[in-house]
Amino acid sequence: MNSESMKLEIYDTTLRDGAQAEDVSFSVDDKIRIAQKLDELGIHFIEGGWPGANPRDIEFFQMIKAIPLQQAKIVAFGSTRKAGNVAENDPTLQALLAADTRIITIFGKSWPLHVTEALGTTLENNLELIQDSIAYLRSCGKSVFYDAEHFFDGYKADSEYALETVRRAVEGGAERIILCDTNGGTMPWEIEAIWPKVQAICQVPLGIHAHNDAELAVANTLVAVQLGARQVQGTMNGIGERCGNVNLCSVLANLELKMNHPVLGEGRLQHLRNASLFVSEIANLLPNKRQAYIGDAAFAHKGGVHIHAVQKNPLTYEHVPPESVGNRQRVLVSDNTGRSGVAHKLEEYGVTLPRDHPRVQQLLAQLKDRERDGFQFEGAEGSFEIMVREALGTHRPAFSLLGLRVIVEKRDAEEVPRTEATIKVQVGDVIEHTAAVGDGPVNAIDNALRKALEKFYPELREVDLLDYKVRVLAGNHGTESKVRVLIESGDHKAKWGTVGVSENIIEASWQALADSIEYKLLNRDQEAKEPNDG
Amino acid sequence: MNSESMKLEIYDTTLRDGAQAEDVSFSVDDKIRIAQKLDELGIHFIEGGWPGANPRDIEFFQMIKAIPLQQAKIVAFGSTRKAGNVAENDPTLQALLAADTRIITIFGKSWPLHVTEALGTTLENNLELIQDSIAYLRSCGKSVFYDAEHFFDGYKADSEYALETVRRAVEGGAERIILCDTNGGTMPWEIEAIWPKVQAICQVPLGIHAHNDAELAVANTLVAVQLGARQVQGTMNGIGERCGNVNLCSVLANLELKMNHPVLGEGRLQHLRNASLFVSEIANLLPNKRQAYIGDAAFAHKGGVHIHAVQKNPLTYEHVPPESVGNRQRVLVSDNTGRSGVAHKLEEYGVTLPRDHPRVQQLLAQLKDRERDGFQFEGAEGSFEIMVREALGTHRPAFSLLGLRVIVEKRDAEEVPRTEATIKVQVGDVIEHTAAVGDGPVNAIDNALRKALEKFYPELREVDLLDYKVRVLAGNHGTESKVRVLIESGDHKAKWGTVGVSENIIEASWQALADSIEYKLLNRDQEAKEPNDG
Repeated sequence: MNSESMKLEIYDTTLRDGAQAEDVSFSVDDKIRIAQKLDELGIHFIEGGWPGANPRDIEFFQMIKAIPLQQAKIVAFGSTRKAGNVAENDPTLQALLAADTRIITIFGKSWPLHVTEALGTTLENNLELIQDSIAYLRSCGKSVFYDAEHFFDGYKADSEYALETVRRAVEGGAERIILCDTNGGTMPWEIEAIWPKVQAICQVPLGIHAHNDAELAVANTLVAVQLGARQVQGTMNGIGERCGNVNLCSVLANLELKMNHPVLGEGRLQHLRNASLFVSEIANLLPNKRQAYIGDAAFAHKGGVHIHAVQKNPLTYEHVPPESVGNRQRVLVSDNTGRSGVAHKLEEYGVTLPRDHPRVQQLLAQLKDRERDGFQFEGAEGSFEIMVREALGTHRPAFSLLGLRVIVEKRDAEEVPRTEATIKVQVGDVIEHTAAVGDGPVNAIDNALRKALEKFYPELREVDLLDYKVRVLAGNHGTESKVRVLIESGDHKAKWGTVGVSENIIEASWQALADSIEYKLLNRDQEAKEPNDG
Repeated sequence: MNSESMKLEIYDTTLRDGAQAEDVSFSVDDKIRIAQKLDELGIHFIEGGWPGANPRDIEFFQMIKAIPLQQAKIVAFGSTRKAGNVAENDPTLQALLAADTRIITIFGKSWPLHVTEALGTTLENNLELIQDSIAYLRSCGKSVFYDAEHFFDGYKADSEYALETVRRAVEGGAERIILCDTNGGTMPWEIEAIWPKVQAICQVPLGIHAHNDAELAVANTLVAVQLGARQVQGTMNGIGERCGNVNLCSVLANLELKMNHPVLGEGRLQHLRNASLFVSEIANLLPNKRQAYIGDAAFAHKGGVHIHAVQKNPLTYEHVPPESVGNRQRVLVSDNTGRSGVAHKLEEYGVTLPRDHPRVQQLLAQLKDRERDGFQFEGAEGSFEIMVREALGTHRPAFSLLGLRVIVEKRDAEEVPRTEATIKVQVGDVIEHTAAVGDGPVNAIDNALRKALEKFYPELREVDLLDYKVRVLAGNHGTESKVRVLIESGDHKAKWGTVGVSENIIEASWQALADSIEYKLLNRDQEAKEPNDG
C-alpha cells in the first residue's frame, strides 16, 4: 500500500446515527446540505442513511448523486440479511444495492446475547449470514465496510465467538472491520486490552465506532488510533442514539493539533467551528457552548487570575490557539472585569474609531442593551451595520412606515387560513398604501412591502429572501416568550443577514425584514452618483 | 494507614471552579443548598470558594459553620502568598485562615512560563513561596492540600522544575498533592507517562484535577485513579472555567459501576440524577439531555432495531441499568421507530395490539407521512396520542372551531404592535364567540381560546404553556418556508408536548394549541358542563 492509502480515514455518520438522536429529524434537503458541508470540511466518508428503513433516505441517495463533491464518498448503511432469507432475495440488501453507492456499510452481531435474543437465530447461522451478506454485496461490485456491532461487549462475553465473527467478515470480503462500542460503556483500558487480539487474527484495516454513554468516547477513539485504527467513525457535535456517538469535532481537533494526524487537508480545520454550528443550526439544536474546542465558552475567561494572565500570554490558559479551529478568545464581563470586557467587545465587532469618541460610547451602550434584549449580531451583520450607522449619525432611511396591519383568518379547523397584509409607507414626499396576501403573515408583509417600495427602488426586485429562522429565547413563558428572527437575504452580488427581537413574532419579523431592505439600499446614492462607471 | 483512609476521596469544586463557568452565578444561599445536597450524596470534600477574592465567599464560610453535615468537610481555596509578602502578613493566606475550615487548599505554579509571565517572579522565589505558604498554614493547625496548577504542561516544559515544586510542597507539609491539568489539553497517555515520575519522588497521596478542553477529562481522571490517585476533584455536571472541569457525575458512576470503587456509600449512587438536576436548577442551566448516565436521553431509544431489542432485554442497548443512577428507560416515537415502537406506544395508551396488526401498520404509515410533511412526535406525544385515538376511532373532540381571526397592527416603525384575536367555538350545542388581546398573535389566540373554553372546562385554568418552539423547516424559501411549532404544556400533575406544521405560523401554532387543550381534556369523565353549571 502507498502512504496515501495508509492515511487515517474519517467516516461521518451524522446523517444516520446522528439522526437517531432525540429531537433530531433531518429532511432530505437538510441531509444534502450537511453532506455538502462535511465534504467542504474534508471528511472522507459520509454515511447517508439506511435506505429501505426510511423513505427519506431512499430519496437522499437518489438526489445526492447529482451533487458534485470534492472528495467525500457517500456510503449506504444497513444490516446483514435476515436470518431466514438468502442474500439474493433479502429486501435489506436489495435496498442497499438500490442506493447505488460505491461503498456499503453493513452491521452484524458480535455478541451471543444479541444473536439469540435480538436476532433470534443460532450462533452458527449468524456467522453464515455475516459472511454471505458481505460476499453477496462484493459479488455485486461493492466495497463493503463491516460494523462489528457490540464488539467489545461481545468479546467480554465470549472472546472466541466475537473473533470468529470478524474472521467470517474477512472471509466474506469486508475491506474494513469497524469495532463498535455500541452501548458506549467500554473503558479505555479495555480497548487497549482487546484491540491487539483482533489485530492478531485480522489483516484487514480496523476502524473504531464509539458511543459516549460513559463520557469516554473521545478517549476510546484516540486510544484506538494509537493502537493502529485506520478508520474513525463519529458524528458532528456527537449527536446520536442516547448520549450520542463520539464527537467528531473533538476527535478531529485532537488528531490534528495533538497527535500529528493532518486528516482534513491544509487549512480546513479552521472551518471546524463553522461546520459544527452549521449542523446545530440545521438540526435546530442549541449549540453546546461548553463544547471542547469549538464552543462559545471554550476560550472564554472569567476568573480574574485567568483574565490577567491570558492578556499577558494566551498560552497561560489556552491549550491551543482558538483560531486553529475557527474559534476566538472571549473575556467575560463580571464584577472584576467590567471595563476590559467592554473594551474587548468593541474589538470583536471591529469598530475602528477612537475609544473615547462619544458616539462609540453610545454605540457600546446600545450594543449591550440590544444583546441583553436577546439580539445577536453574529449572522446579522446587516442589522449591525445599520445600528452602527444610526449611532454615528450617517444612516438615511430609505422609507418610513406609516402603518402596517396583518389579518389571518379561518372559518373552521380544516380550512387553510387566509392571510392579508396592508402597508403604508412614505418615500420622500410620496405616500404609498397597498395590500397583499401571503402564505403566512410574514410572507404577506414581505409581499406588501416589496409591492409598496419597488416603484421607488426597482433594484429590490433582485433581492431574494434566502432563509428565515425563528428562535424562541430562553425563559419558561410559553407563548409570551420573546422570539428572535434571523433573515438571510441575497442578490446577485452578496448575501446579508438581519435580525429582529420581540415578544411578538410579527414585530420581530418586521424588524428583520425592514433592515434587510434598508441594507440593500444603503449604498443607493453612491450608485446614483457614478453614472459614468458603466 | 488503615483501609478506611486508603479509600478514594471525592472532592467537589462546583462552588468554586464551577462558579467560574460562563452564565453561572451562585448566591450564598445557593451555595449552602448545593453543599447540603453534595453532603447527602456522599461527597467527602466540598470546596466552598475563595475567601477574600469574593465577598460572597466570606459569608458562605461564616454561614456553613452552623449547618450540620453528615460527612462532608468544607474546604477553603486560595493561592500561595504573593511574591513580595511574608506568609504571616499575606492577605490571601490571612483570608484563608479567617474562613475557619479544618482544611485549606492552595494552588501554586508548576510551569516556568507561569512563574515568569503570570506571577512575575523568579523560579527560585516560586519554590520558596510554595513551601513557606504551606508550612505557615500547617503551623496554624490546618491540613493543607496543594493544587499543582498546570502540572502536566509544566512537566512537559521542564520536568525537573515541575518535580521540584512538588518536593517543596511536600517539605512544606502538604497532605495531598493534586496534579492539575488546568488547561485541559493533556492526552491520557501523557498522564500515564508522567504520573509514575511523580510517584517516584513523592510519598504523599496524589490527586487529579482535570479540565475538559479536549473532551478527555473523564478519561484522564479514571486513568489517574488506575495509576493510584487517592483524590479525585471535579464539579457536578462538569461546569467550570471554559469547557468546564471533569464531570463528577460521570466519574462517580464509572467508579462505582465500572471500576469497583464504592465511593459514595451504600444506596447513594441512585440519587445521582436527582443531585445533578438539583445543581442545574440552582445554577439556572438547562440540563444537558445527552449527559452520560443521568441525561434524559441517556437511556432513550429511537432506532427501530434498538427499541425492538431493549423490549426483549434491556442489556442489548443499555450499558448499565438506568435505575442504578436514578434514571429510566424511554422509548421515542419517530419514523426510525418501526412497528415495535408503535406497538409499545399503543400499550402505554392501554391498547395491546401485535406488531403485525393492520392498525399498527396503518398508524406507522400515517406516522411516516406526517413526518415527511415535517411533523415530529418525539417531543409531542400529546399530538401522537390524539392521532392514535383518531385512528382507532376512540377520540371524542372537546370542541369544534367555527372561526378564528387574528389582527396585528402598528401605525409607525416605533409603535409596539397591537394584537387581537377573535374566536368562535362550539361545545355541545353551545356556541361561544369571544375575543382577547395578547403580546403576539399566538398569545392572543391562546388567551381567546381559553376565555371561550374555560366556562365549559374549568380545569383548563390549571394548564400552563411552559415552552413554545418554532423551527423553520429546511428549504431556501425565505418567508414562504414551512414552520413546525412545538408547545409544551403542563398542569400540577403532568407535562405534555404537542405539534403543528404549516407554511403559516399562525396555523401551525393553532394546531399545536388545539392539540394541547384536547390532550388536557382527553380523560374528562363526563360531558361538558353547561356554562351556567357553576
